[in-house]
Amino acid sequence: MTADSSSDQKTARETSELIRFGFATPSSEIPATVLHESKRCLLDFVGLAIGAAHHPAVEAARSAFDTMGGDGHAHSLGTPVKLRVTDAAMVSGVAAHVLDFDDTHAATILHPTTPLYAAGMASAEWRHRSGLDLLAAHALGYEVGARVSLALYPEHYDVGWHMTGTTGGLAAAVSSGRLLQLDQRQARHCLGIAATRASGHREHFGTMTKSFHAGHAAADGVLAALLAGRGFTSAPNPLQGRRGMFSVMSTKAKPEALVDGLGERWEIFRNAVKPYPCGVVIHPAIDAVRQLRERMDVPAEEIENLELRVHPLVVELTGKTDPRTGLEGKFSAPFACAIAFLEGKVGVQHFTDAHVTRDDVRAVMTRITLVPDPDLTHDQAVATIRCTRGSESIRVEHARGTPENRLSDDEIWQKFEDLVVPTLGQRQAGELADRVWQLEAAESVSELALATVPSR
Amino acid sequence: MTADSSSDQKTARETSELIRFGFATPSSEIPATVLHESKRCLLDFVGLAIGAAHHPAVEAARSAFDTMGGDGHAHSLGTPVKLRVTDAAMVSGVAAHVLDFDDTHAATILHPTTPLYAAGMASAEWRHRSGLDLLAAHALGYEVGARVSLALYPEHYDVGWHMTGTTGGLAAAVSSGRLLQLDQRQARHCLGIAATRASGHREHFGTMTKSFHAGHAAADGVLAALLAGRGFTSAPNPLQGRRGMFSVMSTKAKPEALVDGLGERWEIFRNAVKPYPCGVVIHPAIDAVRQLRERMDVPAEEIENLELRVHPLVVELTGKTDPRTGLEGKFSAPFACAIAFLEGKVGVQHFTDAHVTRDDVRAVMTRITLVPDPDLTHDQAVATIRCTRGSESIRVEHARGTPENRLSDDEIWQKFEDLVVPTLGQRQAGELADRVWQLEAAESVSELALATVPSR
Repeated sequence: MTADSSSDQKTARETSELIRFGFATPSSEIPATVLHESKRCLLDFVGLAIGAAHHPAVEAARSAFDTMGGDGHAHSLGTPVKLRVTDAAMVSGVAAHVLDFDDTHAATILHPTTPLYAAGMASAEWRHRSGLDLLAAHALGYEVGARVSLALYPEHYDVGWHMTGTTGGLAAAVSSGRLLQLDQRQARHCLGIAATRASGHREHFGTMTKSFHAGHAAADGVLAALLAGRGFTSAPNPLQGRRGMFSVMSTKAKPEALVDGLGERWEIFRNAVKPYPCGVVIHPAIDAVRQLRERMDVPAEEIENLELRVHPLVVELTGKTDPRTGLEGKFSAPFACAIAFLEGKVGVQHFTDAHVTRDDVRAVMTRITLVPDPDLTHDQAVATIRCTRGSESIRVEHARGTPENRLSDDEIWQKFEDLVVPTLGQRQAGELADRVWQLEAAESVSELALATVPSR
Repeated sequence: MTADSSSDQKTARETSELIRFGFATPSSEIPATVLHESKRCLLDFVGLAIGAAHHPAVEAARSAFDTMGGDGHAHSLGTPVKLRVTDAAMVSGVAAHVLDFDDTHAATILHPTTPLYAAGMASAEWRHRSGLDLLAAHALGYEVGARVSLALYPEHYDVGWHMTGTTGGLAAAVSSGRLLQLDQRQARHCLGIAATRASGHREHFGTMTKSFHAGHAAADGVLAALLAGRGFTSAPNPLQGRRGMFSVMSTKAKPEALVDGLGERWEIFRNAVKPYPCGVVIHPAIDAVRQLRERMDVPAEEIENLELRVHPLVVELTGKTDPRTGLEGKFSAPFACAIAFLEGKVGVQHFTDAHVTRDDVRAVMTRITLVPDPDLTHDQAVATIRCTRGSESIRVEHARGTPENRLSDDEIWQKFEDLVVPTLGQRQAGELADRVWQLEAAESVSELALATVPSR
């Protein structure tokens, strides 16, 4: 192999500024409003990691690592098992992503929090870092991951990269690198190592490997921090260099997005938290149906027709009228909306093989008509019910959970409760949530990790 | 995240055939001539892994893993340290690549053997697999890695991917998957997991991260095999699917290369073994200078001019006339050719900071003229010496070590000896080489791994 004499010997200004911001901003300088967002993300993350702690994908990954030994640095969250720090990051990352229920940077479809906290919790528990440092690692890692994503989106995603596996690893590297206390020289090498590991093809959506992308991004972030901390070197200009991440993984990168308004505008305020564990494009229609149900209280048998006007992509991606499994139900708008009508809520408990074939659900599904409407955005839907006693229509402008229609702290807690109570019980779930809300005062993250282990 | 309903539900024929060939061909059915090639590759690999076992990049990686514990599955070759199987693969991969001296699939610039044997040795030592099975895992993994590379080369490389980190991981997955005895269903998932982890940007050439690519490819292969063995699933059509490796990582993939002549023509016969530890484009010029020296025996001070006519890329990539470090010397044709003239050989011992500034070397370098000649191929060079007693010219048609001008088994042994004797001493080096040459009769690879540990 020959040297590439064209490689840049200097870090480009934008990359350099972003690295400095991400790694060198003191935890104490993060605005309180930003830290509060990071706490909301943490509650959501912990709920998902516990709720999916025994999913088959998670069991498979954990068993692969568990039998290989290694010092027990950090918990596989929601279980008593302690794994090596890189493995704990991987397994918690798989868990928090495998339900397709984790949060989203609305502008880019990156799922930042899973790799960030999977890497961050493992690193912080291992090194006994403070609650404030963990929250700051999330906030700054979010900013870096979101901005690298903005620089690459949408072409990078469109060509088939799963951003959670690509830019998610850079986010995780910032989180872990901060918690492992890298200096600025090491920080640059850390980001470079994470950048060269960016990977994950969208072809694997619908298989366990989709969640592996979130897990490997988390583990890559930790490994990059570990290697850089030991003196491992990477290229000076890993993102903007001629053969670096931007030019190799996109033909239309926008480096200015790395620094535009950096420190003034925080991308975390564009975070979307999913209220329903199914395809996000279905969410506005679910909202509309739930509102209709509240307003009219019509028995199912009286429905003549339930028309859902939706963005055309909803029909293309989730038009499935005959789902046979719980997983298929996640990508069936008629199924999810029938559940919303009958149950008034849509939770993880509904996406089972038994629910998709329920007679009453099927009866409602046959009366649902999906109408693609190009004048509606992804966030909008119009539901119109016609029944013996008349008709009613509801228009949703912004789906619940989007930045324009945020979930309240209490709604995020309710989602957490649904996911966690079956495993931890009501009392322990409440104590765990309290720990999250008060995390900036915690001297060490270790107690939080321990509090995810079922005590009964 | 929404499901991508466009994903293929069936493995494409070419991918399917290649998987079957790579994973299901019995070790006993590999032609003896192919196995002999794999043994030559193993001797070369073991020499490099031992020779670089204490390189700073290798020390950094090993120390990052060593302090994390884990069962000692397999040796960090050339040291008494045993690491977890994935870590052993990573560290031996970094070691065998870090000198830029490992072998090359001539048609694609993939360095297949490093990820293959780094993954294979670690897996085989861990699971006590036979010598024949290790050799077969190399031969079949080589075939898969080379064919995936052929399907993607040159565009994939030209855009900036380091193939040793991308397709090298698929090769390693075949090697490790065979040695971990995956069944055919698991084999497909294993290849898919390795495909989605393909990564490595050429920007990092010249830093430790270049060798990390070879190491992570090896570790990815082992991890893919471990996960698939535990029931982890990946997409049915990981290479040729719409959002799979080929379409995401290339715009000009040629899937037919996966199967063209499969089982009849073996890509391993296009393996090139480097005789000199420096930029491969310089090699024909070194050969020419060494032949001139043998023919004329001119004292350096009598040289008036030493003209090297070379492919234009030699000047572009290795025209450096004032290298300041041993590493820069690897990419300086004038330096390497001056060493060849003065020493009659070019070995790892010459690429040090002290050698690049030697007065006698500098004196010869000032008399060397590099002349780019577009009529010459990468393999060719013409060296012409002019001195007081006349002039002489040598034309090299194929550099030593290329498939057209292969190193003999004895020449590979000499390279091994140069790399290994300083660490193991002459006697142990000889015994180790004997073990390699007789490996197909060994019941377990474990003794081979142990034989790389310095006994003194």
